[in-house]
Formats: sequence, structure tokens, C-alpha cells
Amino acid sequence: MSESEGRENEAREPNGDELGTVAELAKRRGFFFPAVEAYGGVAGFYTYGPQGAALKRNVEESWRDRFVTREGHVEVSAPDVMPEPVFEASGHLDGFDDMIIECPSCGEAHRADHLVEGATGIEDAEALPIPEVESLFEEHDLPCPNCGESLAGVPIEEFNLMFETSIGPGSGQPGYLRPETAQGIFVEFPRLKEYARGQLPFAVAQVGTAWRNEISPRRSLVRVREFTQAELEHFIDPETDEPPLERVEDVELTLYPVDEQEAEDGEYVTMTVREAVESGTVVPWVAYYLGVARGWYESVGVDMDRFRYRQHLPGERAHYAADCWDAEAELGGNWVELTGFAYRSDYDLSKHDEYSDEEFTVFRQYDEPRRVERATVDPDMSTLGPEYGGAAADIAEALSALAERDPSAFDGEDVTVEAGGESYTVPTEVANFSVETVTESGEHITPHVVEPSFGIGRIVYTVLVHAHATDTVDEEERTYLDLPARVAPTTVGVFPLMARDGLDDRARDLAADLREAGFDVEYDDSGNIGRRYRRQDEVGTPYCVTVDYETVEEGTVTVRERDSTEQVRVGTDELPAELTALRTGSKSLADL
Amino acid sequence: MSESEGRENEAREPNGDELGTVAELAKRRGFFFPAVEAYGGVAGFYTYGPQGAALKRNVEESWRDRFVTREGHVEVSAPDVMPEPVFEASGHLDGFDDMIIECPSCGEAHRADHLVEGATGIEDAEALPIPEVESLFEEHDLPCPNCGESLAGVPIEEFNLMFETSIGPGSGQPGYLRPETAQGIFVEFPRLKEYARGQLPFAVAQVGTAWRNEISPRRSLVRVREFTQAELEHFIDPETDEPPLERVEDVELTLYPVDEQEAEDGEYVTMTVREAVESGTVVPWVAYYLGVARGWYESVGVDMDRFRYRQHLPGERAHYAADCWDAEAELGGNWVELTGFAYRSDYDLSKHDEYSDEEFTVFRQYDEPRRVERATVDPDMSTLGPEYGGAAADIAEALSALAERDPSAFDGEDVTVEAGGESYTVPTEVANFSVETVTESGEHITPHVVEPSFGIGRIVYTVLVHAHATDTVDEEERTYLDLPARVAPTTVGVFPLMARDGLDDRARDLAADLREAGFDVEYDDSGNIGRRYRRQDEVGTPYCVTVDYETVEEGTVTVRERDSTEQVRVGTDELPAELTALRTGSKSLADL
Repeated sequence: MSESEGRENEAREPNGDELGTVAELAKRRGFFFPAVEAYGGVAGFYTYGPQGAALKRNVEESWRDRFVTREGHVEVSAPDVMPEPVFEASGHLDGFDDMIIECPSCGEAHRADHLVEGATGIEDAEALPIPEVESLFEEHDLPCPNCGESLAGVPIEEFNLMFETSIGPGSGQPGYLRPETAQGIFVEFPRLKEYARGQLPFAVAQVGTAWRNEISPRRSLVRVREFTQAELEHFIDPETDEPPLERVEDVELTLYPVDEQEAEDGEYVTMTVREAVESGTVVPWVAYYLGVARGWYESVGVDMDRFRYRQHLPGERAHYAADCWDAEAELGGNWVELTGFAYRSDYDLSKHDEYSDEEFTVFRQYDEPRRVERATVDPDMSTLGPEYGGAAADIAEALSALAERDPSAFDGEDVTVEAGGESYTVPTEVANFSVETVTESGEHITPHVVEPSFGIGRIVYTVLVHAHATDTVDEEERTYLDLPARVAPTTVGVFPLMARDGLDDRARDLAADLREAGFDVEYDDSGNIGRRYRRQDEVGTPYCVTVDYETVEEGTVTVRERDSTEQVRVGTDELPAELTALRTGSKSLADL
Repeated sequence: MSESEGRENEAREPNGDELGTVAELAKRRGFFFPAVEAYGGVAGFYTYGPQGAALKRNVEESWRDRFVTREGHVEVSAPDVMPEPVFEASGHLDGFDDMIIECPSCGEAHRADHLVEGATGIEDAEALPIPEVESLFEEHDLPCPNCGESLAGVPIEEFNLMFETSIGPGSGQPGYLRPETAQGIFVEFPRLKEYARGQLPFAVAQVGTAWRNEISPRRSLVRVREFTQAELEHFIDPETDEPPLERVEDVELTLYPVDEQEAEDGEYVTMTVREAVESGTVVPWVAYYLGVARGWYESVGVDMDRFRYRQHLPGERAHYAADCWDAEAELGGNWVELTGFAYRSDYDLSKHDEYSDEEFTVFRQYDEPRRVERATVDPDMSTLGPEYGGAAADIAEALSALAERDPSAFDGEDVTVEAGGESYTVPTEVANFSVETVTESGEHITPHVVEPSFGIGRIVYTVLVHAHATDTVDEEERTYLDLPARVAPTTVGVFPLMARDGLDDRARDLAADLREAGFDVEYDDSGNIGRRYRRQDEVGTPYCVTVDYETVEEGTVTVRERDSTEQVRVGTDELPAELTALRTGSKSLADL
């Protein structure tokens, strides 16, 4: 038998000041707040308080469980600071820029593309060339949002978003705070493939901090300068590897493909993972991860009625990306990107292969050894040497390269090659050209990369906003977070009915026992029981346990459930097992 | 009944090339390796590979369990980049320097104090003033370790160890990568105390990255530029709060106090936590944490025969620190600091109170309200105003401050105060001096801080080195890591006896089931079983499970234990529960 606290009316603020309410709650109850406020703060940096750090850790742990452990992948931890050559290769040094416009009147810097988007209805101004954006400022006579003066005619510049520092003493060598965790995986590919014993496919994850020196940090945890990413780089052979679609084929996806975005009355399309692949809507590897992630988002508390997968528009997509989808959540009426799912082709590994001294390839074994014809030369150096002196070696090398590239060049009497900027014509017989048949067991290929890249802070923020709810309990309005038990910062609140007659000691012992059993526990004996319930409701604690006089007499406690406010009595001996059953969902309160 | 693989001779290399062997193993098997080697690497930065990242995570998780969850403390996550005023207050901007000497011949930079220590036998050259260190270079004619030229007469300079960066567009504002996680806790104290409802004692932890731009990174993970700290800041009322010593009073500590270090035949002293406190060897709050940490180190695999607590010498200790001890482990013949345990008094909070706009105090309620006399003034502005014009308000304020500071100054006919750099003498009656009796319920105090600060990378490294062992199995030398199951990167290796006849599918399913049950599992079907055991032994996997033809017929598998190499057969249905029992130590292999 169970009893509740007289609960009525469930309500949510779908938009309204939902974000303001959550920001106030986040600060007051210790989820997150602007960092270093004692010194005036610094835009774009947040501190996660006790509740938020626990929630964030639980989300990360759950991500790791789903995307690493259960998939049989591995995780690494690379440095946050990396030297310049890494970012020369990755393209971040040259291309990781935002458009900045600095108001000549007040000195405030703004993102030029955001101002244009806000004023014109253009959706992806970032993709426009700078002169075009400058023209838009003139055309619309856009004002500075800070002081109101016109920004027409003000030059727009590129601003690199990486935080720079210097490694080592003296002038040191330039280093950067990584703008994404992915590079720490790509750059170590030669070693990581050894751990995978050279076999594709394999996937490597990293959960860690990344930094972007945003011009205008805004929208709470959405656009910040320091954030946590969880990235997975799945290295595949594009010709032979296929994702294990059967594991997620029936998962239903809410998709917003390019053609629907471009249509006048574009709508979401709902289809299973299998249908999405078979209809050609999503490429198979990306579809696989959309399917896996869908269930995960739901499990950590993202509201599936405020969630969609949106395909990148052609202008958003990198030239090398075959397909890219974002998971988006609705927050305060806006859609926010939580995760990017990209098919990145061989772009990343090819770049590092080109820029570094190591090889970023794997050896693909043929099913059967292949007999192939290979043209070779064996230049007669006793002729070339006296004739061409110092250039002879270069000529020999050029002949060898030509044989590989174009064997038919050796069909005539003479053959002409370029070496050291000069052209040389030599008798074909000097080259000793021949074609051999050789056996090859395989070839070196550059793997393709499938990358799901999760923004943990945005997901934490979304989970908080989507969990925020109110109802009426005992004729008073109650605010609570209906967080899933697996991510809630505290799993069990433990209270003595009164802080006297030994009830408090008994409750403290019980709290210690539950901690030993691995639960996140908060002990509270301050104020009346109703107030203590409200305090835990407000931070999303799914269960509260109260020690009362019956505990002393009969060894039972009340277990009270957050959402329903229902209560049942449970023996203290069975409590850890019963709470585990509730938390994992194998029992409901009615089963106890 | 169990059988083993014919194991003999357990051996450890106590010193020798133990560190070289572990470095090779760490790289080859993916524990850790120098980062970004594809681009030539950068000194002092390491990447943790799949094995090392898992080991490190398990050590952190175990730390969190012991020092946060079980103690009922909380954890926060503050930014890595913080603005300059934080480090002005903390003293890092001015005082966080190392002595650098740059060789005029080869240009190489060195730590001057380290060169002096290596050449002279002086133990703590860092504490010497620069001119004295310069004299020592002259006196000993110390050469550059790189090129051999003399460094006598070369000026030594201070080099700040913080990595600097710039926050925001344009010239931005200066920011630094935090040199310790602690400041992220101290600076948010005003808010954190609210979450503790203003009640001392409370403790706040943080596990995160910190950076020190070391002049000469060295000794593998010991002296690096980017590292992980786990710090706990315990805020206490120094007059009333006492640690719960009874929880650890019987723990035996191996101590190396100052007087033994200074004695000619100094020895370690072994005593319990209670004895250490009662003999005055260690202050109570520090002793409490030495006791808690002792058991934790052992639980994660630090060899207690290669471990000690060493008290800081007077020259090592900060002036504000009442007592400070280091946990040290022996690695390759050297003692390495793993953790500092410091009683930091009110230093940190006082500094931030002084430098920032907020108050870093708590209100200490008196047991009973106190009646106290309070001197006040109520200056007659109608007299002061006409007489002193613009200075009148400052004079009134100075009178008020004087009354609080020295009521007797108002005993005479006139009273003299300083205001705005000038001296003013006014008739006492103008001040309207009086003494009132008021009731005070408490006072504002600045909490003291007890700080255990753990270097996670060094602990991971120590655990690896101490776990490294060899013996003889089947007449061949075997290398293994006897890591505790709770920190081992992989808990269970799962193998099919052969990768055919469906054994591989069966083993893969079993691996998936064990992952679902929360184990870290590695599936391996390559090479013979003996080789697969060795592969897991080498990375410290405590249990291997083999699927064979009996599995198909009778539903049992072999469970093989790493250290003893013994095997028993277990039913697949009971496997998760039995492995859990083995892992937590509630059963041994013989009990299965």
C-alpha cells in the first residue's frame, strides 16, 4: 500500500521564461553559474556546482557506457595543449575563424554573421564571403547592438577562435588549447592502429575539454568558451566495412532532411533507421549512430517531443563530408545543436599523413594475392653519370617515377623527363625499362572516419531545461526536476523524521550504509519533512528515505518517489537492493 | 578443483631498469606515451592510450568514491582558464616562479636549482635566494649539462610557470591555465558556502587538469607540463571543528618527520594515527587524512613497502602552513611526491577576501548571544560641513573608524583624525561620541583550509611500476601487472578456445552480456590461448574466461586468475555474480 502527498496538476512551461527559471535554479541550487563572479566574472566560462558537476559526470559516464563499453570501443586521453603543426595540418590555424566587426564608436566586438542573421532572416551568414556580408551591413544600415551607431562601411575581419599560448621557457614554441578533442585521436592514429593490430574497423573515443575563443559568448551553456566534448572517431574501410545496422534498425528517427528544410511547407519525416538507409535519406554509418544516440538521449532525459535530427544544408557541410546530421533540441523556442554526426571521409588522416613524418594508413589484405604488372627501370648510371654529372641521380629518379606513371613513354627510341626544373632527353635503352609481374598481398589505404561529436554541456543544459516541471502538492505549487535516476545528482535523500531520540544517528548510519553500497546520498535533518522533500524535488532526487519511530521498532523506513510523491515502507535490510531495482527500472514503487 | 599453468618463481626488479621496462611496456601496450610524436613531440605532454586512460579513470573513480562520496563531501568543476585577478590574489602571478639559467653557448634553458642540487648535494636549492644560487654556480664552476660550457657568472632569472593566454577578441584580457585546481574552489567560496547553508565544516573536491610550464620536463609522468589533480579543500572552524579521528585512529603510518630527516641516522617512525596526534607528530586534521589516504593508496596498488609520509622541512613549507606532509613513493630508487597534505590556515580565503569584492567568511553563531559594548559617533555635520566643506564627510568617517579602533581617543577635549592625507583636530563634542551595549549573536570568521592534493598521473605511474612483476609459467618467463581488480583497465578477457565451430559467436555473446553487466571486457580470438593469457597478463587483466566445447555441451566456462594462473569452471549463468564476488574480494577462486 502506498500513500502520496496529494498531488495534482502537472504543468510545464513550454517556452516562456523557462530558460530564466532554470538559470535561477541552476545558480541557487548549485548546478552551474558564471565563473569567478567575485572578480566580476569572465564571459563564456561557467563553474558546475555540486549538483551540476554530479549531473555532468553521470551524463558522461552514461555516454561512456553506451558509446564505448557496450560498443566494445576504447577511450584515450590526449593533452589539451597541442603544438602548432597539429593545427596547421588540421586546417584550424588557417580556417577556424569567425567574422568579427568592431564598433568604431564604442569598441565592442560582434560576430558580423550573427548580426546579419538577426536583421535579415538569412540563415547561414557564416557561409557567405566577407565582402558580401559587408555589403549587407551597408544595405540594411545595421547598427551596433551595444551603442546603436551604424556599422555600415566598417571592415569585417577574420578572428581565429583558438586560444594561443607558449610552451617552454623563453619565447617558447606556439601551442593552442585544442578546439576539439578529435585531433588528439587523429594525430596518434599510427600508434592507435597498432593497438587495434592494424585491423579496421576500430573506434577511439575521448571525453575532454575543448576551447573556442568566441567573440560573443551567449545563451548560457550553449555558446561558451570552454566546454566538454565526447567524441568518437570510428575508422573504417569505406569499401568493405558496414555498420551493424541490425542492432538499431527498428529505432524510429525524427528527421529533417535538406529537401524538407528547403521546401516551402517542409515537415519532419519519421522513419526507422532501416528505412532511412534504404530510402537513401541517411548514409548507413551515420544512420547507425543516429539510431544508437536516439535511445541514449532519451535515457538521460532529453524530451523526445523537443528533439530532431537535422541534415546539414549544402553550405554548412565541409567539402570533404559525404553527409552530416545534427541532433538538435528545442530550448526556449530555439533549436540548439547537441551533437554532430559526420561522415568525414579520409580528410583528417590524409592531412596528417601529408603534414607529418608518419603514415596514417592501414594495410588492406586482398582476399587472394594478386598478380600485377609493374613497370620498372634500372638506369645505366655509367652512361648517365659522365653525361649529366650531378643531375644524373635526379634523372634516374624521374625515369623511375615516369615508368610507374606512364609505361608507354618508354615505347619510342628516346624518353624525356623533367628533373630539377630542366628537361632531359635520353635514349630509352639507357633506362633499362622492363615490365615484371609481381604478387601483391594487399595495399595501403587511408581509413575513412565516422564521427559522432557530442557537446556535453549543452546536453546537460537541455536535460535540466526539459526536466523542469511544476505541479500542485498539498495545495501548494511544487517545482521539481523529473531527471532519470541514472543521471540525477543525488539518488537518495535520507532524513530522520526529527533530529532527536536517536533518529538522526540512525539516519546518518543508514546514509553511510547506502554510500557504501554505491549510492549518491544526501543526508538532511533541517526543517520539516515537507520542506526537505521539496528541496530534493527541486534538484531531481528520485527517492527519499525517512527514518521514523517505526524504524526503531520494526526496522522499516519510508521510501518516497519524487514524481508521484507516493510512499511505501521497506525493511532497511532490503533497502539497497530495492533502491537498485527502482533505479534500474526493474521494479516500480508498487512492486515493493 | 582448480588447475594452474605451472607457475614458479615470483620476481620483481626493485630498481635496476624497472622504469625503462615500464616505459617500454606503457608505449607498446597503450598505457601512455609522449604526445604528438608524429610531429616530433613536445616535452612534458603525454597521451594516455586505451589501457592508461582506463587505469587513470579507475584511479580517479576510486579516489572520488573514497574522498568524496564516502566522506559525504561534494565535487565541483570550475574552468581551466581563469582571468588574471584570481592569480594576483592567490600569489601565483608574482610568486609562482622557477629559477631559470640559459646557457649563453648553446641556448638551452635549465632549472638552476636542479643543477645546484645535482652537483652539490644541497637538497632544497629552490628555497635559496637567487644571488646565493648564482654564487654556487661560480664556486663549483657548474657546466651546462647540454654543451658542457661553464655557467659561472651567467645571471639566473625568475620564470613564471603559468601558461598565459588571452580571453576574448582583440587584445582581450589576460588569462592563465590554472596551475592548480584549488583556486577554482577558493574563488567560488561565497557561493559554495551557501550550498553548505553557511555551516562549517564542509569540504569541496575537484578532479581536473592543471598546467605548469616546466623549464625541464623529465622523469616520464613525474614532471610534466599538463597533469591531473584531485584536490579536496576542507573548510573548518579552527576553534571548534575536529576531525573524526576515531574512523582511522588505528591505521599505522610510516612517518618521516622533520627531526628524523635532520638527524644523522634518521629513521622512519611507525605509529598509529592516534599516536601521531597524541605525540604531537602530526596536527589532527592532517593526521586524519594521512590515515584515510593510507588505505586508499594500498587499495589502488601502491606498494606499502615503497611508501612513506615525509614532513616538509621548514624551508619547504609556506609561511602560512601550520604543517605539511607529502605522501611519497619510491620509483627507480628515487622518492616521488604523490600527494601533499597541508594545513593552509586562512591564507587562501583571506587573500580572496582582500582582493575581490565579496566576503570569504562564514558567520559563527555564539552558543549564547553576547552583550558587548560598542563605541559609536554621530558627528554633527552642521558644524563640520561649513568648517571643512568637501572634507567633512571623510572626517566623519575617520571619526567613526577611530571610535571603533580606539575609544579612549575621545577622552579629551579635542580629537585628531587623518582624512584624505591631511590631519584634522576637532572638538570632541562635535563627534557626539557614545558607548552603547549591544547584543551580538555571533561573528564573521575566515575558515581555515585543510588540503590533500593528489597528483593522479604520478599515482597512475607508481601503480604501474609497483605492479610490474615477472615469474615463470610453463617454463617461460612471464611479465604481468598485479593490478588490483578495481583499477585494472580490463576486468575480464573473453576468449573462444578456437575461432570456429560457433565458439567465437558464443564468446562474443558472452562478452556482450558481461559488458551489459557493467564489466570492462576485452574479446580476443587471435593466436593460441597461452599467448592470449600473456597478452592480458601484461596489461593486468585479473580474470580471463574461455569458451570451449564444454561450454556448448554443459554451459560452463573456465575462469582463470591472473596472479596464480589457476583455473576453475563456472556456469555461464552464475558468471557475472561470481566475477563480481571475485572483483570485490568477497570470494576467492577456491570458493567458486
